[in-house]
Amino acid sequence: MRFGDKETAMSLPHVERKESDDTHTVRVGDALFGSKEIVIISGPCAVESAEQVKQIAELALRTGTKVLRGGIFKPRTSPYSFQGLGRKAIEILRNAADEANLPIVSEVMDSSQVDEYESIIDMLQIGSRNMHNFSLLKRVGKSNRPVLLKRGMSATLEELLNAAEYIMNEGNDQVVLCERGIRTFNDFSRNTFDLTIIPKIKQVSKLPIIADPSHGTGDREMVIPVARAAIAAGADGVMIEVQYNPDKALSDSTQTLYPEQLVALVEDIRKIAPAVNREFK
Amino acid sequence: MRFGDKETAMSLPHVERKESDDTHTVRVGDALFGSKEIVIISGPCAVESAEQVKQIAELALRTGTKVLRGGIFKPRTSPYSFQGLGRKAIEILRNAADEANLPIVSEVMDSSQVDEYESIIDMLQIGSRNMHNFSLLKRVGKSNRPVLLKRGMSATLEELLNAAEYIMNEGNDQVVLCERGIRTFNDFSRNTFDLTIIPKIKQVSKLPIIADPSHGTGDREMVIPVARAAIAAGADGVMIEVQYNPDKALSDSTQTLYPEQLVALVEDIRKIAPAVNREFK
Amino acid sequence: MRFGDKETAMSLPHVERKESDDTHTVRVGDALFGSKEIVIISGPCAVESAEQVKQIAELALRTGTKVLRGGIFKPRTSPYSFQGLGRKAIEILRNAADEANLPIVSEVMDSSQVDEYESIIDMLQIGSRNMHNFSLLKRVGKSNRPVLLKRGMSATLEELLNAAEYIMNEGNDQVVLCERGIRTFNDFSRNTFDLTIIPKIKQVSKLPIIADPSHGTGDREMVIPVARAAIAAGADGVMIEVQYNPDKALSDSTQTLYPEQLVALVEDIRKIAPAVNREFK
Amino acid sequence: MRFGDKETAMSLPHVERKESDDTHTVRVGDALFGSKEIVIISGPCAVESAEQVKQIAELALRTGTKVLRGGIFKPRTSPYSFQGLGRKAIEILRNAADEANLPIVSEVMDSSQVDEYESIIDMLQIGSRNMHNFSLLKRVGKSNRPVLLKRGMSATLEELLNAAEYIMNEGNDQVVLCERGIRTFNDFSRNTFDLTIIPKIKQVSKLPIIADPSHGTGDREMVIPVARAAIAAGADGVMIEVQYNPDKALSDSTQTLYPEQLVALVEDIRKIAPAVNREFK
Repeated sequence: MRFGDKETAMSLPHVERKESDDTHTVRVGDALFGSKEIVIISGPCAVESAEQVKQIAELALRTGTKVLRGGIFKPRTSPYSFQGLGRKAIEILRNAADEANLPIVSEVMDSSQVDEYESIIDMLQIGSRNMHNFSLLKRVGKSNRPVLLKRGMSATLEELLNAAEYIMNEGNDQVVLCERGIRTFNDFSRNTFDLTIIPKIKQVSKLPIIADPSHGTGDREMVIPVARAAIAAGADGVMIEVQYNPDKALSDSTQTLYPEQLVALVEDIRKIAPAVNREFK
Repeated sequence: MRFGDKETAMSLPHVERKESDDTHTVRVGDALFGSKEIVIISGPCAVESAEQVKQIAELALRTGTKVLRGGIFKPRTSPYSFQGLGRKAIEILRNAADEANLPIVSEVMDSSQVDEYESIIDMLQIGSRNMHNFSLLKRVGKSNRPVLLKRGMSATLEELLNAAEYIMNEGNDQVVLCERGIRTFNDFSRNTFDLTIIPKIKQVSKLPIIADPSHGTGDREMVIPVARAAIAAGADGVMIEVQYNPDKALSDSTQTLYPEQLVALVEDIRKIAPAVNREFK
Repeated sequence: MRFGDKETAMSLPHVERKESDDTHTVRVGDALFGSKEIVIISGPCAVESAEQVKQIAELALRTGTKVLRGGIFKPRTSPYSFQGLGRKAIEILRNAADEANLPIVSEVMDSSQVDEYESIIDMLQIGSRNMHNFSLLKRVGKSNRPVLLKRGMSATLEELLNAAEYIMNEGNDQVVLCERGIRTFNDFSRNTFDLTIIPKIKQVSKLPIIADPSHGTGDREMVIPVARAAIAAGADGVMIEVQYNPDKALSDSTQTLYPEQLVALVEDIRKIAPAVNREFK
Repeated sequence: MRFGDKETAMSLPHVERKESDDTHTVRVGDALFGSKEIVIISGPCAVESAEQVKQIAELALRTGTKVLRGGIFKPRTSPYSFQGLGRKAIEILRNAADEANLPIVSEVMDSSQVDEYESIIDMLQIGSRNMHNFSLLKRVGKSNRPVLLKRGMSATLEELLNAAEYIMNEGNDQVVLCERGIRTFNDFSRNTFDLTIIPKIKQVSKLPIIADPSHGTGDREMVIPVARAAIAAGADGVMIEVQYNPDKALSDSTQTLYPEQLVALVEDIRKIAPAVNREFK
């Protein structure tokens, strides 16, 4: 397999695209990642209250969102920051999703959380900080739940694909990749959204890939143009943080869209999709 | 003026966008950078022969390209690599452009080249390696020619805007910015195209900005998706390397499009433009 | 607390240095990290055989090494690379260390490994790939074993210090930091050893910090000069990979020193230490 | 020639080290870069007044400094920042240096400055922002003055060596390289001093290399440990910004040493030099 200049010695039998391969599809509820249809995942950064999530689930339905996101455990830089509501959050999220008939995606941070929550969470998210946590990758590889694997903050293409290979080598082939920004010298945004990995993944791997412009930029004003760009570059979907009172959010407030911004973004995606031979209904 | 987290002490009276400002427009022939219409610049990396440029000028006309590009002096990492045809190249390029009634953009590498060629070149390009060459910036600031200012390989937003300020402070306000990829740890592409600077420039500056996905990726297969994405993110245009025999090009062969790829890209741009309230005729 | 330009909102009560603070010391066997004496940790990347480790333990004694290192579980990019001998390795390492009367440091990759091995391993190493694995950080924070916390490949100063804070906030204050190279655009070495974090840690934190020039450079020829430099910059010690047949090592062969190179390095450190008011006996 | 993983196609006949080669030496006054003796260059960032430079020249003599530095033209990010005193500065610097019988090194920013000042400046400095300014490199390659070539902010090893090759290919083989910090994600120092390039240059090239910890860190408190480390890693010298009233300096005030700090640093270097088989008298 070739990466940039060099032929890698590594074998990636599960993730590599051979010429005859179609993109691999992964189903989560009504969403089919890797199909012709663009998938939108939306929801709050962290689950904070039943009222909050209920409102967002209704917005999700209205905007064509196919998967509801919401953090129950939040990996935070400081041990003294809000760490998520945990068990209480999962109940809130599950109830709201069931009422709206939507599947949920939420992050798991270690094997014991997988044990406890894999029956409740429809799609298990591996956060960027855990992309190299091989014990966790192997554990979700033994789950029968689809996995959303976020790229590490400084992960190379080779490392991202090998992380997926760790999961798939354990038997679980329902893996969707997610670009969420990398660490560079740039200081005008929290991370540098690496758009170029989207077409590159399409070239070398059969796995679907989506974009997370919320974490990828850390700036509400940049989420919409970057989301549009990701679709134009061939992404299979986007994951968007949205909330009714983003300025009061307990985490990620500066990057969370207002509801009307999500509505506008969905309209943009509807227009761009046909230009890249995709659709969003 | 705010960049990311911090308030900068620097004053940028010429490039800064105040709330009431429209995007500043810059005219080069029929192209009007910063207007509603997307501008496409295309041509070979380096001028190699009259036949080569004549063919490309015809392709330019056919694809709606408004400005013809072509290197006459090539800044190359090694002193032993092909350095451009110089004076001979400028005649070839000027003749082909005149026949097609197109303006040309070409790089100047020092003040003496500006002295010698500013009467012949319609738009003076400052390459990324010279973005911090303040003597050259001041010299083109005294020219009456429009300037295409490429972002340095590791230039911050603040540095890019200040480079434009150096030019404008000398009296020349016809400046168009260009994103062409930054240095990061990524090893799957020659540079990392920083899509996010496009919406950021739109937010903080009134200058037009275009994208150079050819240098921004260094990989022909990624030029088309990245060009589409740049337009979707709000870029005012794209600059594309194209040639009839890219595999035989004396420089940048791996990133140069085949003519039919440019035709396809133009079709994509025509479809995406309306989704971002732009047009390409 | 100040980091570079900005005042951080984060509180770091355990790791922060107040003006009156001495460097915090951490004892592992005869080694006292943070004291006047430079500490050398050495050993093979991975435990491969009893014979290998026995030889290295003898070399350790001869060179004044105070802690023996050896990987029992190896976090590898590819799931198909050698992953360490696991349980078998720990017995080999423990036996050789006991015979030489040396403590051991070895990496743990998840909470269940801490449960199983904390009674056997004298100092628990958190690898760079797990620096953001907050579940694991909390778990070793409940251990009574000293912890060697390696900086993540793209961790900021703030993130490294907060990772230590996660551990100490659980009650374990025996934390030693370790710089092991960061991700940059550089392509002449595997990582870019960030020397500058050593004096910066001394300025803002009371925790000891050592250098790992083996992983920090990935190149045997650069290990010695970088190790010398780390001591000259104020590091409290170095961790060095060494083996009798490095070219046959199952992992990290290009960065592993030959025994005579370790002997030479130790001599250099003995000479440099007094220039920075330290000693190595 | 090998760089990291790859064999470069580029030929570097002038800078490459063949096995039989000694380090090339470059003489500037009494300083012999690349010899057994460590060379210290010191002086203010910018020449501000005759009194300032006179005091510093006396300090230079007292500390064993062999070359006096001082900026006459300052490449500044903003066109509205202090740009150096120009012609007036060169007279001040020359007079003070003559009185102290010291040679001077100062930056030239374009070919016309070389024309005007090469008879006055003993060693021509190419700043990091101009490392890719090939017109300027060729011009100093035609000078008979030694050149101090600073690494670009994001220059690879290959690019740095090729920049030197550009100079030497024009006939001037008196080139000294200088590491001054690179652009990375780090936010606790202005640049990330790349210590590792020092031993790497020693391995692949015969050119001398010195360190500029003042620009390399941007922080007075880190200049001393980083300078010590550079010597311990094999650097042929250091260039240090020093001034009597650094807090009132018109540029770079936060990184400029107080005179007594330079005195202390020189003592440290005297002690470390013998450990790496060098000397400082």
